[in-house]
Amino acid sequence: MPEFLSLISPAKARENFLKVVSEAIELKSEKISTVESVGRVAAKPIIAPYSLPTFNRSAMDGYAVRAEDTYGASESLPAFLKVVGEVKMGETASIEISNLEAMMIHTGGMLPQNANAVVMLEHTQRISPAEIEVYKSVSAWENTILQGEEILVGETVLAEGQRIRSVEMGGLLALGITQLEVFRKPRVGILSSGDEIVSPESELVAGKVRDVNTYTISALVRSCGGEPIPYGIIPDDELQLRQAVINLKSQSDLILISAGSSLSARDYTARVIQEQGLPGILVHGLNTRPGKPTILALCDQIPVIGLPGNPLSAYVIASHFVKPVIYTLEGMNSQPIPNIRMAKITVNLNSQAGREDWVPTKIIPSNERWLADPIFGKSNMIHALARADGLIWVPEDRTGISADETVTVELIET
Amino acid sequence: MPEFLSLISPAKARENFLKVVSEAIELKSEKISTVESVGRVAAKPIIAPYSLPTFNRSAMDGYAVRAEDTYGASESLPAFLKVVGEVKMGETASIEISNLEAMMIHTGGMLPQNANAVVMLEHTQRISPAEIEVYKSVSAWENTILQGEEILVGETVLAEGQRIRSVEMGGLLALGITQLEVFRKPRVGILSSGDEIVSPESELVAGKVRDVNTYTISALVRSCGGEPIPYGIIPDDELQLRQAVINLKSQSDLILISAGSSLSARDYTARVIQEQGLPGILVHGLNTRPGKPTILALCDQIPVIGLPGNPLSAYVIASHFVKPVIYTLEGMNSQPIPNIRMAKITVNLNSQAGREDWVPTKIIPSNERWLADPIFGKSNMIHALARADGLIWVPEDRTGISADETVTVELIET
Repeated sequence: MPEFLSLISPAKARENFLKVVSEAIELKSEKISTVESVGRVAAKPIIAPYSLPTFNRSAMDGYAVRAEDTYGASESLPAFLKVVGEVKMGETASIEISNLEAMMIHTGGMLPQNANAVVMLEHTQRISPAEIEVYKSVSAWENTILQGEEILVGETVLAEGQRIRSVEMGGLLALGITQLEVFRKPRVGILSSGDEIVSPESELVAGKVRDVNTYTISALVRSCGGEPIPYGIIPDDELQLRQAVINLKSQSDLILISAGSSLSARDYTARVIQEQGLPGILVHGLNTRPGKPTILALCDQIPVIGLPGNPLSAYVIASHFVKPVIYTLEGMNSQPIPNIRMAKITVNLNSQAGREDWVPTKIIPSNERWLADPIFGKSNMIHALARADGLIWVPEDRTGISADETVTVELIET
Repeated sequence: MPEFLSLISPAKARENFLKVVSEAIELKSEKISTVESVGRVAAKPIIAPYSLPTFNRSAMDGYAVRAEDTYGASESLPAFLKVVGEVKMGETASIEISNLEAMMIHTGGMLPQNANAVVMLEHTQRISPAEIEVYKSVSAWENTILQGEEILVGETVLAEGQRIRSVEMGGLLALGITQLEVFRKPRVGILSSGDEIVSPESELVAGKVRDVNTYTISALVRSCGGEPIPYGIIPDDELQLRQAVINLKSQSDLILISAGSSLSARDYTARVIQEQGLPGILVHGLNTRPGKPTILALCDQIPVIGLPGNPLSAYVIASHFVKPVIYTLEGMNSQPIPNIRMAKITVNLNSQAGREDWVPTKIIPSNERWLADPIFGKSNMIHALARADGLIWVPEDRTGISADETVTVELIET
């Protein structure tokens, strides 16, 4: 299989790949406790079993009244109302008020029968133990929250495929929904291959480098809700790679292989992936830098991604291809809003037409706008990323960017 | 203690509070494994123990050469070089090359002695088993990564107070640093108070609402690296609140109290906080909506924050005050870059001069720019946030925002 025969556009490749993956996979679900559900994705729509609030509440501290008893009230001509009691927090308002009566009430308290508004405390004055003056008229239902105003019975609380944040979790708990069905976490097999790779604990000898990808990619997988299955380091050997991929296939929903660097290693990595099932390799080579030698494949319903061996390239490709695939495998109905920042670039950048570039950059807060100050250097290794706040995107149709232009920066959060 | 006597600016309040907190606290550290360090904060600077790469490497697949042997080479007038071997991945290049000699080399391979450049494979042709033609000249050190080019011995890899992302973790592992000293996770005591509050498992009766704050605030604390200690629900009772706060004080680095809604509950909550130590309450009441009744205090070196009881208000105040305090307690040397988005607002918004507003909004991708489509409704409860992608910021000096203006939206991620 000759390499880079047809480099394709990264955005197009991603779109097509996500489509193929989402059509091929079958999602499984499990029931979990709502309080553990942050970051998970709803497997079924959740419908409100009743309305919230369950009773008419006060939105203010003050007096529950009949609005019509306050009409025309002002500082110079206050309304006089008789105070018939107090609604205690958490208690059912058992007394009902009659004409020209009021009850003391607190924020969140239950409105008594016949009351249809709340006068704020600061617009009243207690003139005797059982009498107030009201200095401002209120309209019907002013300063109240009506039953069902937050959510109505039958409304969709959570759509299928919606990711649960803490606010969604809170919304479920408010409705007493303490368990729910979510999609299973995708298990992501991760393989690092290369004769030069040794574990981080090893003493370095000349020619060797320590494994970084297993750990950075595992962290990235975890950050978007996947469950990493690190397989470890495989030497540049086709038989061992094949066996490792077959082993991972039985326990993974997605397989990531950071390929050996030699030409022959890249060749047989592609061959091993291609053997794993149909349709096999869909994309081999992307018009992006870093990350040209990326492989996107689908084998027997399991997506397989061949990542570059270089840790920086592997991380950038994982951000743009592995993350969205994991979101798809989690059953999300749409990709999350990306964490990007528009910033003014401090220097000129060159780029090759037809190729998308990602350039590590610092982000500096400035008076009016943020500044993007690219990190240069021939070395494209992991420490360049560790110094960066984000990556500047240079679109394929640009041959360069001039200083002071506004660029899109993707923030590196994890 | 009369309430809202002096409402102060939220930005000013936050700045002052963070300063007071960071001056008061004493950070403790612990040693952990580097692979578990993502999200933690370095307690000591980490200095590179040696340079990386540890040897001169090839940045391409091709042939290691002496650059001077290729000078003047072109398609029509190629240079002829003798191939004296191949540098295997992960092996020390033991042979050295002489004048007019080349060695096959792979990306990441170790440069042999005397070689000072790499000719890319596509600019060569093998004309016999031991001879190549070179069609393009290379300059000295072209297509190589020199020893120390990634990081030099003695360089700072990680500053004290720097948060570790997966890329920093990878950088440490590349240097063989498998353990490091990080600041301890702040323990955050969380109290929900109010006679109307019942647990999420409870059947609802009129007048009661289920506890949401304990869970949403715990999730938010966890998302920024804190360790939540949920204390549970306390009724509107000064003695019980005092005992709970005293209990939490012995095991927390930060205490959060979502206060009861009644005036008297808010009064004694402030009193209980004030009793816990000097300097006590620093801010009581903020010019922000939601979140006016916020309390910021420091008692015996422990920050205490009084949150509004309403779940939406509690969440918004926690995002703007609890999060930055947690980052400070983690020892971060600067606050993280906020996840904000500039967007075009779809409708007019009214606001009160002198007050900052946060309005829940959808974010809609549009052709040119993102659109912010506010979520309206009198109800300011948790389901309004669950429908929102973010919060529109209306600065204090604005009395409103017109449709089509560009606004700042803070994304709700967790």
